[in-house]
Amino acid sequence: MDKVPDPSERKDPQAEQQAKVKTSLDKIRHKFIVMSGKGGVGKTSTSVNLSIALANQGCKVGIMDVDLHGPDVPRMLGLQGLLDISPNQKLAPAAYSENLKAVSIESLTPGKDDAIIWRGPIKFSAIQQFIGDVDWGELDFLIIDSPPGTGDEPLTVAQTIADARAIIVTTPQEVALADVRKSISFCKTVNMEIFGIVENMSGFPCPHCGETVELFGSGGGEKTAQTYGLNFLGRIPFDPNVVLCGDNGTCFRDAHTQSPVTRAFDQIAAKMAKLV
Amino acid sequence: MDKVPDPSERKDPQAEQQAKVKTSLDKIRHKFIVMSGKGGVGKTSTSVNLSIALANQGCKVGIMDVDLHGPDVPRMLGLQGLLDISPNQKLAPAAYSENLKAVSIESLTPGKDDAIIWRGPIKFSAIQQFIGDVDWGELDFLIIDSPPGTGDEPLTVAQTIADARAIIVTTPQEVALADVRKSISFCKTVNMEIFGIVENMSGFPCPHCGETVELFGSGGGEKTAQTYGLNFLGRIPFDPNVVLCGDNGTCFRDAHTQSPVTRAFDQIAAKMAKLV
Repeated sequence: MDKVPDPSERKDPQAEQQAKVKTSLDKIRHKFIVMSGKGGVGKTSTSVNLSIALANQGCKVGIMDVDLHGPDVPRMLGLQGLLDISPNQKLAPAAYSENLKAVSIESLTPGKDDAIIWRGPIKFSAIQQFIGDVDWGELDFLIIDSPPGTGDEPLTVAQTIADARAIIVTTPQEVALADVRKSISFCKTVNMEIFGIVENMSGFPCPHCGETVELFGSGGGEKTAQTYGLNFLGRIPFDPNVVLCGDNGTCFRDAHTQSPVTRAFDQIAAKMAKLV
Repeated sequence: MDKVPDPSERKDPQAEQQAKVKTSLDKIRHKFIVMSGKGGVGKTSTSVNLSIALANQGCKVGIMDVDLHGPDVPRMLGLQGLLDISPNQKLAPAAYSENLKAVSIESLTPGKDDAIIWRGPIKFSAIQQFIGDVDWGELDFLIIDSPPGTGDEPLTVAQTIADARAIIVTTPQEVALADVRKSISFCKTVNMEIFGIVENMSGFPCPHCGETVELFGSGGGEKTAQTYGLNFLGRIPFDPNVVLCGDNGTCFRDAHTQSPVTRAFDQIAAKMAKLV
C-alpha cells in the first residue's frame, strides 16, 4: 500500500520561495536599487560602472537586472550566452570578473530580440526567482538595476528586500527632476532608505573645441538633493565614450582610466565601500 | 411593493466600460502609439512635437499620456491644473490649443510629486478609463505616449485599440537599438502595425564651434528600419533647446521655427497627415 502523505509535509510553494529568497539575501551585506523617475538618464551605466568600481576596490558584487523589458546589463558588461546551473541546482550568475557577477532576463532567453510581454504578477515572481533561485553566494553588494518609474519592478524589490537602499539617478533637466520627486515619494511610501542622488549627463565638453555644453541643463540633481535633505552622491559628465563602450560591451573605466566619468564613479563607489 | 429588477437590465460593469471605450474610439480616425524599447530616447518630446505639428496642419489631435509613472506630457505642453468634467459627465481633456487636447494621470492627481505605485491590473483599468471616460470627441489623430518597454501599458493599448499603429522612437546607439528590436517583436506578437521608426538625438552641432558631435552614434535607426523592412520616418538632431522648452512648457516649434528639429517633425507629421 502506498504511504499516505502527511499533510504537514506538504510544501507551500510560496513559503518555500520566500525561504529561498531569505537564504540568498542573508548572504548579501548591502543591497542597493538604482532607480530613476525618467528613462534614459543612465541608470544602467551607473549600475554597471559603480559595480565595476566596487569590484575593483576588492568588494564582492552582484548585479541583478530587473529591467525585464529593456535588460541592457549583459550587453554593457559584454556578457554573452545563457546562464548555467550551479552544482547546488541553482542558476549560476554570469561572471564578469572574479568579484563581479550578473543576472538578467537577457541571459535566460535564447531569442535576444524577443520582447518580454509580461504583466505585473509574472514580473513579481520572476524577480523573486532572480533572488531565491540564483546562486549569488556571499556578496558585499547587490546592485539592482531597475526600469524607470515606480511600477511593479521597484515595488517588488521594495517588498522583497526590506533593507534595500535607493540610489536615484537623474539628469539635470526639470522634466527628469519632476520624475525624481516621484521616486522620492515612492521610497517614502514603501519605507525605503534613499542612499543618495546621482546627477548624470551633467555638462559635456565638446570634443572639437573643448567648451562645455549643458545638454540637459546643470545642477538640478544637487538642488533636488538639498531640497529634500538627501545625500548628493556626485555629478557625472556626459561622455559619448560611455555610450560607445556600453554598445560594445567594453569596460569604460579600463579604456578611460583618467576620464572625469571614471573618477566620478570611483568617488561614489568609495562612499559605498565605506559601508563594508 | 418595490419593483423587482429585471435581470436583463442588470449592468455588467466590464461590458459597460467596453461599450464606452468603443464609443470613444469610433470617433477617432487614426490612433498612434509612440513607443520605445529604451527610456529617455525622446518619446514624449516626439509625441508632443508631432501632435503640435499635426494640429498646426489643421488636424484635430488628442494626446493620451499612458506613462503613469513618468507622466511628462502636461509639463511639456505647459498645461497646469486638473481636468474638468464635461457637460456629458465625462472628463474634459486639457486644451493646449483649439486643435490639440491632452489627458494624463498628471492632470488627475493633485500632488504632482506623488508617485503612482500601481501594479499591472490597475494600470489596465486606468488606461481604459482614459479612453472611455474622456470626452475626446471627434479626432483625426490620437497620439498615445507610452512608457518605455513592452509592459502593461503598451499591452493594454494593443488589446484595447485594435487599429492602433506604432511609431517606434530610438536613439542611434546599439543599446537602444537592441531594445527597439524587442519593440518590433512586441508589435508582431500583438499584431500591431508599425507605422515607422524615428531616430532621435541623431547628431548634435556644438553651439560653440558648430562641429557635429555624435552623442549617441548615428544612423542605427535607419539601418534597423531597413533590416526589418520598416518605414524610416526621419532623423531628429539633438538640440538642448528641446530640453529647455520641455522643462519650461514652452512650445519648441514656435520659438525655433527654422530649427532642423522643427523641420524634421513637420516632415513626419506631413507623412501622417496624408492618412487623413
